[in-house]
Amino acid sequence: MKTAITPTRNEDFSSWYQAVINWASLAENSPVRWCMTIKPGWVAIWEMMQKFLDKKFKETGHENAYFPLLIPLSFLEKEAEHVEGFAPECAVVTHHKLKKGKDWKLVPDWKLEEPLIVRPTSETIIWDAYAGWVQSYRDLPILINQWANVMRWEMRTRLFLRTSEFLWQEWHTAHSTEEEAREETMKMLKVYEDFMKDYLAIPVLSWEKTPEERFPWAVNTYSVEAIMQDNKALQMWTSHYLGQNFARSSNIKFQNKDGEEEYAYTTSWWVSTRMIWGLIMTHSDDNWLVLPPKISSKHIIIIPFTNSDNEDKVLDYCYDLKKELDSIEYNEWKIWVVIDNSRVWWGQKFWNGVRKGIPLILKIWEKEIEKDSVSLVKRIDIESNDLVLRENLKSNLVNILDWIQDKIYARAVGYRNKNIVEIDSLEDFKEHFKKENPEFVLCYSDPEIDDGREELLKELRATSRWIPFEFNENNSEKTCIFTWKKTNNKIIYSRAY
Amino acid sequence: MKTAITPTRNEDFSSWYQAVINWASLAENSPVRWCMTIKPGWVAIWEMMQKFLDKKFKETGHENAYFPLLIPLSFLEKEAEHVEGFAPECAVVTHHKLKKGKDWKLVPDWKLEEPLIVRPTSETIIWDAYAGWVQSYRDLPILINQWANVMRWEMRTRLFLRTSEFLWQEWHTAHSTEEEAREETMKMLKVYEDFMKDYLAIPVLSWEKTPEERFPWAVNTYSVEAIMQDNKALQMWTSHYLGQNFARSSNIKFQNKDGEEEYAYTTSWWVSTRMIWGLIMTHSDDNWLVLPPKISSKHIIIIPFTNSDNEDKVLDYCYDLKKELDSIEYNEWKIWVVIDNSRVWWGQKFWNGVRKGIPLILKIWEKEIEKDSVSLVKRIDIESNDLVLRENLKSNLVNILDWIQDKIYARAVGYRNKNIVEIDSLEDFKEHFKKENPEFVLCYSDPEIDDGREELLKELRATSRWIPFEFNENNSEKTCIFTWKKTNNKIIYSRAY
Repeated sequence: MKTAITPTRNEDFSSWYQAVINWASLAENSPVRWCMTIKPGWVAIWEMMQKFLDKKFKETGHENAYFPLLIPLSFLEKEAEHVEGFAPECAVVTHHKLKKGKDWKLVPDWKLEEPLIVRPTSETIIWDAYAGWVQSYRDLPILINQWANVMRWEMRTRLFLRTSEFLWQEWHTAHSTEEEAREETMKMLKVYEDFMKDYLAIPVLSWEKTPEERFPWAVNTYSVEAIMQDNKALQMWTSHYLGQNFARSSNIKFQNKDGEEEYAYTTSWWVSTRMIWGLIMTHSDDNWLVLPPKISSKHIIIIPFTNSDNEDKVLDYCYDLKKELDSIEYNEWKIWVVIDNSRVWWGQKFWNGVRKGIPLILKIWEKEIEKDSVSLVKRIDIESNDLVLRENLKSNLVNILDWIQDKIYARAVGYRNKNIVEIDSLEDFKEHFKKENPEFVLCYSDPEIDDGREELLKELRATSRWIPFEFNENNSEKTCIFTWKKTNNKIIYSRAY
Repeated sequence: MKTAITPTRNEDFSSWYQAVINWASLAENSPVRWCMTIKPGWVAIWEMMQKFLDKKFKETGHENAYFPLLIPLSFLEKEAEHVEGFAPECAVVTHHKLKKGKDWKLVPDWKLEEPLIVRPTSETIIWDAYAGWVQSYRDLPILINQWANVMRWEMRTRLFLRTSEFLWQEWHTAHSTEEEAREETMKMLKVYEDFMKDYLAIPVLSWEKTPEERFPWAVNTYSVEAIMQDNKALQMWTSHYLGQNFARSSNIKFQNKDGEEEYAYTTSWWVSTRMIWGLIMTHSDDNWLVLPPKISSKHIIIIPFTNSDNEDKVLDYCYDLKKELDSIEYNEWKIWVVIDNSRVWWGQKFWNGVRKGIPLILKIWEKEIEKDSVSLVKRIDIESNDLVLRENLKSNLVNILDWIQDKIYARAVGYRNKNIVEIDSLEDFKEHFKKENPEFVLCYSDPEIDDGREELLKELRATSRWIPFEFNENNSEKTCIFTWKKTNNKIIYSRAY
């Protein structure tokens, strides 16, 4: 069957991606360098993500707060590593007023005494607030999240993946014991992993970063990775158990149960709109966007086929149908049905629904009305076209959506598994990365990499390297393909975004 | 009964307000000048407002999008009035990088060619995007809202009422006919007015601004006002029907049904976190914060009274109770119950619940367990203390909350009505505004005010003046107290925030 976008993924992956973004009304370049205009399609997905994550956060005892956008430079400077990381790519506010002349001008009088940085991340200002809130162990834990915009003036390496400004949530928790902080870190890792599997239908792999890859101020760093359709890895999420490092530089002290003064134990983690990028790149096919029903704000599009004789009758049927379906509960919220009654050719309406990734398309014409039914097309299989009794649709709608959700997940798992290849010799490893879109490689490797492996990986452009929990349970011992040492450790090597 | 805060509202209104904010964990000053740290209590209220408004927006066919935080100065300059309004109070980004030396420094190499302004409002960049999206009348209407942070570097005149950064939503719609745009304006006025009355329990008054008070680029400006407990008026919301003014400066053109090129008809409107300020100032009493149940994220706090002998038994009872109540549907969402099982004196727990404005406080001790009941205290009447059978509480919980919501609204209506006084002579008018917290004055006044009235009002500090729809239906004609002309127009005069 003719697909609706050319080029297809195989023909030209980048142009295909651009077409998906355009046609599903997701985003576009803005007049502000390296920033994007986030269009309704993208925001709707982000809102669905927020809805489910925020509910989970609250169920696990967390609260939201909001801290200032602008951070004094001196705050960033509290941590050497921190300022080194962000100062070279930050937007700096220097003036608080413009002077009117022929044009509006910057004048020294209205220069700020200290430059303010548009937050690239908020830990410094958040820990500073916590320092004021905590006196005793009774004030802990502090379990706070912030939904916000952040800005990093980095070169945009890939369209809509990295933009100067993006939306995210950042968690910063403080605890009175190491044990509790570690428990929090692992609990939330699981929350996100489940969310990505169950809602986003992405078969992610989680792992703990090796010492050389973790953030400098973290004691442990965890990460969740996914495979994209060009076989590159995308980091979907990171979290840190920070020990007392940040508490020390921000002076978050408390009196413990024994009356001694101690620094708090802190954790932090993030997800950003980048997760949407991963969602698009995981599921979309040659017919544009595919959204798992659980993360799609709109579930059904009804397309009326009308002519001047039957218009009222067909539209009445459609609006009745919408009303019935709208009231059905799905995934803790309600079904959302849209009717496309614009005056364009039905084929155009159909492709509109397809390219926006709406899970179910219902076609209504005379035939369907006569039989009190609908013609149902599933987005993931646009050649499907089943005449379904209206009554059956109603009673099975949730099952149909669940079935689609499972199908999309299974498809992604299938893709992932097919594209993780096991390799057991260095020669094959080198050969493998000469391919254009090399699959993930899983191989026995010693986790210590002081063997010149870094050089080789750089040369092969296989710079992503992680030790997923999933493939490291009860492995037998084998030979590391790099060092010939015995190891029971399996590492995934891949290219990455 | 001894109240929990001193001073009371009568003793010292400002200190009372500060105490409410502190103790309910709403906000605090931040280290960034004129910015506040928005604490969980405040964010929770804002999220409730977002939840209900956003639902309404979507039901009325609107969508959310997100536009860049930083706006090029040249965009602001497109409209003379616009840049004049905002340039004198804006945060200006001039550099995109800092250089490392002994300290981190601004250097000319990394100065931006054009300054970027942290958005004080987004119309210029939003209209610019619309101009690209619209070709034909078929592309209209565009019904888009943005939830965002904005920044205005104005002097902070009142704690947490005006801060440099605040959160808001801004609507910008574009239509193909004047009629449709006007209909949208009036429809949304009603949506907000209903929201404020039904959810926030604030008996607001809406009106259309007179020509001299409306925004320079608007054709019609509407506003919604409320009376605070010190009898000052607070503007809760504004909206504009903009005609084709903004479309012209931003070049939003479309081909109409007759094939002619035409500028779009646009509207815009806003609400900000200032609405929370109004909510606090309307309902709070000498026992701290009062929240209408519909806007309170937490509905019930359970306070267990335990000793070492009965701890397990009491806590089990409380958690069982929570589980039962949690599942009850209220106001389209679920009841949220918290248990305070911290190890502090019960009185402290009780006052904690009171000052946070949680609508219902349930006290549980042996007595309540024996009778399978709870002791119920209503926040709006902390001397109430009714022993209620658990079964009755469950089946009547929604009714109890509705009753409280109505009661709070009625109390606010009572306050409003008591504090609008009718005056029919200029002498009384002048005398009235010599009072410390003068009530709103409602009087027959000619709407044309070229009679030196401005001077007088300024002198009396009665600078707020509006013609509410509510008091201007079918008035008989009387004499204007300022001009002696006949008029059927009633104006409210007051002090304002």
